[in-house]
Amino acid sequence: MPVQPAADSVKIAARNETAGDLMSPPVGVFGPQMTVAETVEQLRELTRAAFITYCYVTDPAGKLLGLVVMRDMLLARPEARLEEIMLRDVFALPETMPLADALKEALVRHFPVYPVVDGHGVLKGLIRGERLFAERAIEISAQAGAMVGVEKEERLSTPLKRSLLLRHPWLQVNLVTAFVAAAVVGVFEDTLAQLVILAVFLPVMAGQSGNTGCQALAVALRGMTLGDLKPGTERALVMKEGMLGFFNGLFVGISAGLGMFVYATMQGEANAWLMGLVALTAMVASCVISGLAGALIPLTLKRLGADPATASSIFLTTASDVASMGIFLSLATVLLL
Amino acid sequence: MPVQPAADSVKIAARNETAGDLMSPPVGVFGPQMTVAETVEQLRELTRAAFITYCYVTDPAGKLLGLVVMRDMLLARPEARLEEIMLRDVFALPETMPLADALKEALVRHFPVYPVVDGHGVLKGLIRGERLFAERAIEISAQAGAMVGVEKEERLSTPLKRSLLLRHPWLQVNLVTAFVAAAVVGVFEDTLAQLVILAVFLPVMAGQSGNTGCQALAVALRGMTLGDLKPGTERALVMKEGMLGFFNGLFVGISAGLGMFVYATMQGEANAWLMGLVALTAMVASCVISGLAGALIPLTLKRLGADPATASSIFLTTASDVASMGIFLSLATVLLL
Repeated sequence: MPVQPAADSVKIAARNETAGDLMSPPVGVFGPQMTVAETVEQLRELTRAAFITYCYVTDPAGKLLGLVVMRDMLLARPEARLEEIMLRDVFALPETMPLADALKEALVRHFPVYPVVDGHGVLKGLIRGERLFAERAIEISAQAGAMVGVEKEERLSTPLKRSLLLRHPWLQVNLVTAFVAAAVVGVFEDTLAQLVILAVFLPVMAGQSGNTGCQALAVALRGMTLGDLKPGTERALVMKEGMLGFFNGLFVGISAGLGMFVYATMQGEANAWLMGLVALTAMVASCVISGLAGALIPLTLKRLGADPATASSIFLTTASDVASMGIFLSLATVLLL
Repeated sequence: MPVQPAADSVKIAARNETAGDLMSPPVGVFGPQMTVAETVEQLRELTRAAFITYCYVTDPAGKLLGLVVMRDMLLARPEARLEEIMLRDVFALPETMPLADALKEALVRHFPVYPVVDGHGVLKGLIRGERLFAERAIEISAQAGAMVGVEKEERLSTPLKRSLLLRHPWLQVNLVTAFVAAAVVGVFEDTLAQLVILAVFLPVMAGQSGNTGCQALAVALRGMTLGDLKPGTERALVMKEGMLGFFNGLFVGISAGLGMFVYATMQGEANAWLMGLVALTAMVASCVISGLAGALIPLTLKRLGADPATASSIFLTTASDVASMGIFLSLATVLLL
């Protein structure tokens, strides 16, 4: 394969970005012995060329000692030395910190500017908070796509060929999982041959439990993104989604069962009410399973060290397709034939 | 129905929140004739009790005239008056501005604090930027859920009963749309009775085109969220997703067609190769349709004034289910019977 176009390389590199990649050179850096009056004189010059929010205090080796906010300088005596009024133990981003981690740190703090330091605590640069927040918005907004196999780097401006290369592999994965669901249906070909009406209801069963599971999945992923999911609460989340699956399956199952009953009666089937019961029971069972899967899949992906959103919807659909159509056709085989 | 519990009322009210609901009382407010020296004296007292980022200058009626940054005060002569050094034409959020619009304004500016004014320009309060950004993260992260009928207000801590009430109506909507898809399949009951093998492939057709459409949907919604979708580019977006649907459908259709051919051969069907061709053709056509729908649905919702993500995945699934199974069974009826 020939050399990649430059634009693509940049985008791919962006996924391994560190805090150091985003920083600009430090400005407003002073020695600890400088007085407020001396600093103000220098700031008068510096602010002509640069936008300065904080002053940074470093030792002769460049090590970050502290930070002075303009308000404190304004309120201090002109002869006060910076080391007297500076804030110590300044929060700084390590140069090598992955961007994703830097975003999390910034989210908690929300400072206008973050100093970036190397392994020895030497001030290497500054990152404006808004830059990190723009990155965070890009990050969070990628979730819905990640669930169905769209990479974070794809944007509206991504060329068609690149979009195809990025999305297509997950569609082939989806196809493999769809074959698994088809194989389950295939087991019941004899049942379907005797009761073709069941085939008509297969998409209803699969679609309903799939959407129930997707609701659970979306809520779980959002909780992880916003930091709502505290350690030790995973069990409660899974239980809640299982319960929700039960009740949603029950009420939707009643509608679906009625639909089945009416349709079967219209077709002159003898067992119409039993068919409705099969639809209801299968709906409840498969919605419980897909609710549980919707919570368990992102938790498992996270435990495995993967992005919890990645292809989660594809895995979920497999689980809910197999469960819903498998249970529906099993019950039908046992009760109706 | 009895009075709602307080917690719920708050959450429901939150959806119509304005900038005024989020503001805290203004601090650091001074007259235009005050000198820098006088202001600094007052700030010395004020900063003991409050965190002050900017000074605001108002006329006797409370109307916002300007804003003074600490840096400019530090660099000014002590006898300078605030009106000499203040920034005029300060950006302020109207008290009645909906929160969603305030978030957009904040996104472009990223100031640490925003003044809030009433219709006469009178300073009513302040909102810290971090507060708006926390809201924005909550907003964006709701998208994946909104697509499948999860309300913005639902969080991990939402009680089970409330989650059920919030999510269930969309599941009943989904069921109605699933019945539409079932009705399409029902039209072809005779075809299915003669070739039960087709029923086995129905979930494959529906699942594949559904996922292709969901990829398009997620990319379109993300583009809208991040402001990538410029007016006049909608047509290009729809065309691109149609093309992507074609190529994705073609390559996935080849795999699916091969799967159909192999399975049909194993079952001893005479027309195995023709069945594979039906699967391939239907896959291409339905992926084009679901790709187009994935782009058109959020654009249409937006044009109608609705949130483009709301239940978009439910509408999309209906379109792709009807298209994929309808085309597949139509072609099979014409070519195979």
